[in-house]
Amino acid sequence: MLEEKNPQLTPISALGEFGMIKHLTEKFSLTNESSLLGVGDDAAIIDPLDQKVLVSTDTLIEGVHFNLGYVPLKHLGYKAVVVNLSDIAAMNGTPTQILVSIAVSNRFPIEALDEIYAGIKLACDRYKVDLVGGDTTSSTSGLVLTLTAIGLCPQDQIVRRDGAKQGDLLVVSGDLGGAYLGLQILEREHSVFLANPNMQPEMQGFDYILERQLKPEARTDVKAILKTLEILPTSMIDVSDGLASEILHLSAQSKVGIRLYEEKIPFDTMTITTADEFNLNPAMCALNGGEDYELLFTIAAADFDKIKNHPDFSIIGHVVEQAQGNKMVLRGSNELADLTAQGWDAILGSED
Amino acid sequence: MLEEKNPQLTPISALGEFGMIKHLTEKFSLTNESSLLGVGDDAAIIDPLDQKVLVSTDTLIEGVHFNLGYVPLKHLGYKAVVVNLSDIAAMNGTPTQILVSIAVSNRFPIEALDEIYAGIKLACDRYKVDLVGGDTTSSTSGLVLTLTAIGLCPQDQIVRRDGAKQGDLLVVSGDLGGAYLGLQILEREHSVFLANPNMQPEMQGFDYILERQLKPEARTDVKAILKTLEILPTSMIDVSDGLASEILHLSAQSKVGIRLYEEKIPFDTMTITTADEFNLNPAMCALNGGEDYELLFTIAAADFDKIKNHPDFSIIGHVVEQAQGNKMVLRGSNELADLTAQGWDAILGSED
Repeated sequence: MLEEKNPQLTPISALGEFGMIKHLTEKFSLTNESSLLGVGDDAAIIDPLDQKVLVSTDTLIEGVHFNLGYVPLKHLGYKAVVVNLSDIAAMNGTPTQILVSIAVSNRFPIEALDEIYAGIKLACDRYKVDLVGGDTTSSTSGLVLTLTAIGLCPQDQIVRRDGAKQGDLLVVSGDLGGAYLGLQILEREHSVFLANPNMQPEMQGFDYILERQLKPEARTDVKAILKTLEILPTSMIDVSDGLASEILHLSAQSKVGIRLYEEKIPFDTMTITTADEFNLNPAMCALNGGEDYELLFTIAAADFDKIKNHPDFSIIGHVVEQAQGNKMVLRGSNELADLTAQGWDAILGSED
Repeated sequence: MLEEKNPQLTPISALGEFGMIKHLTEKFSLTNESSLLGVGDDAAIIDPLDQKVLVSTDTLIEGVHFNLGYVPLKHLGYKAVVVNLSDIAAMNGTPTQILVSIAVSNRFPIEALDEIYAGIKLACDRYKVDLVGGDTTSSTSGLVLTLTAIGLCPQDQIVRRDGAKQGDLLVVSGDLGGAYLGLQILEREHSVFLANPNMQPEMQGFDYILERQLKPEARTDVKAILKTLEILPTSMIDVSDGLASEILHLSAQSKVGIRLYEEKIPFDTMTITTADEFNLNPAMCALNGGEDYELLFTIAAADFDKIKNHPDFSIIGHVVEQAQGNKMVLRGSNELADLTAQGWDAILGSED
């Protein structure tokens, strides 16, 4: 952390608001054809290039969404961009621009903002999005980051949450539960550090799940993969709050029910061994943990052969009629449990 | 204020994040042809209708940008929308959508958010913009409001800050300085109230300037007026930080200098009498005060006859070459003072 430790650091007041915005954004350049005007006017100008425009916004608050005790500022900047781009990817759009509002208290020197913006720039470069606006203000306490992401998509390729149909297959990209277990490791080691600052944190061997938590990636690559497979999902959402919560959103908005198979949920080996270490069920980490930023989507059953052997995707369930509700078929049985926003409820009985 | 006073008020936790967003947004409906999808998916979908898209974002922070001691929550919601729409108007765009992120601490009950959203809805109805997204999160302290405004404009009608040319006229809509003096009244009466809560605040007779501060309007009407006059400004900005600061932005980005005539700055009578009461120079209130949300723009000198007698506009200066700098010609003399972000500097001498 760069807070309050070094008297040689520069207070934000040294530059003023406009000087600060210029300082923070001058390393960014516009690279997308759709970015006609970026930072520095009353508004950014976007050329939609004959496509529809997707817009999403998200606020991250210190002490609520992140803990600067163990989240490096550069990672925070990177992740703030990624979680917003993930929302554009979840519409099957291509992210093109971001706007960044940062509110910081006096305890953050300019060098801390530089770190956050270094992370933002890394994400902009990695995902080929342009920073086109935003503001920097003082806050009475803590750090608040609000990002707005803009993306483009031809109308006939946009995928909403409300298109799932009975008989569709439920598919997820990548693997789940890792981000939640990465957070458990960080919180455990942070507690150890607080209890004894001389203790070295034991982070080794947890690289993958720590990266899932600290430096997640948005699955902006899925759009192109599905296009190659000639699949257009019928509905889609990103896994930010947890698989169970996302299934409830898809089913509510599509007015359908969903059957999820516990044994089909994809896990990395490290997720399983770490869950074991914490005495947790990996399925609960996937259902309830969130922050995996994978894409959850439904496809027509006719597309099964196109996707069944693809290493990036797992078929984890299917769509039923709404009256049948949202249920998980438990591992090694055909017992059913109700899916809830907090994971799943007690076993209710079995289905056929 | 609705904070902490009534035990029958409802804590935000009673609804949860998704329940809260639904509760707050269900009264909003989409009315614009360009709003294809609003709140409830991963992103909003905007149809640009063959125009360019303008995007601007602004954060308002309790204790920095507003004081809930004298700003009613409904007014806060209204003003938060207006200041963002003003940015779209300053590009000569038509505002069409907003996204609203609110972070609030536990001390705000649901009823407080209802008040803020009532103000947001009033502004949406008044300006015919649609609420299409955003989020509601808890904050560790205070209230943070981030709005993103979206607007549309045909490419050939967009007005940026960088198009002013030597010989252009400098024009401003409406009158200036009122919002700043409204704030002085509010702060004076708030101090009186804090010193003696039984004192009645003396707000009578200050309606216009109080409204300029508490319930400003965005000059989205200027686009149509100028179109009728067959004038397209060469550069434009809204007066949010103060006339001096905006002149410096226009001149820096257009690479020109500006001559402002103190005696041409438009004031309402109440602004002048109140400035007198506070022993302030009204010109300083206009230059330095800000929050008037009028539009400041430059037009070709050839357009002079089209605008000279229009009651909505005042010609307050002209554009000179960059080397001549930004200066104000003082009232009743031809003495010049350097314009600075804080108003103006000591008299420097006179210019023919």
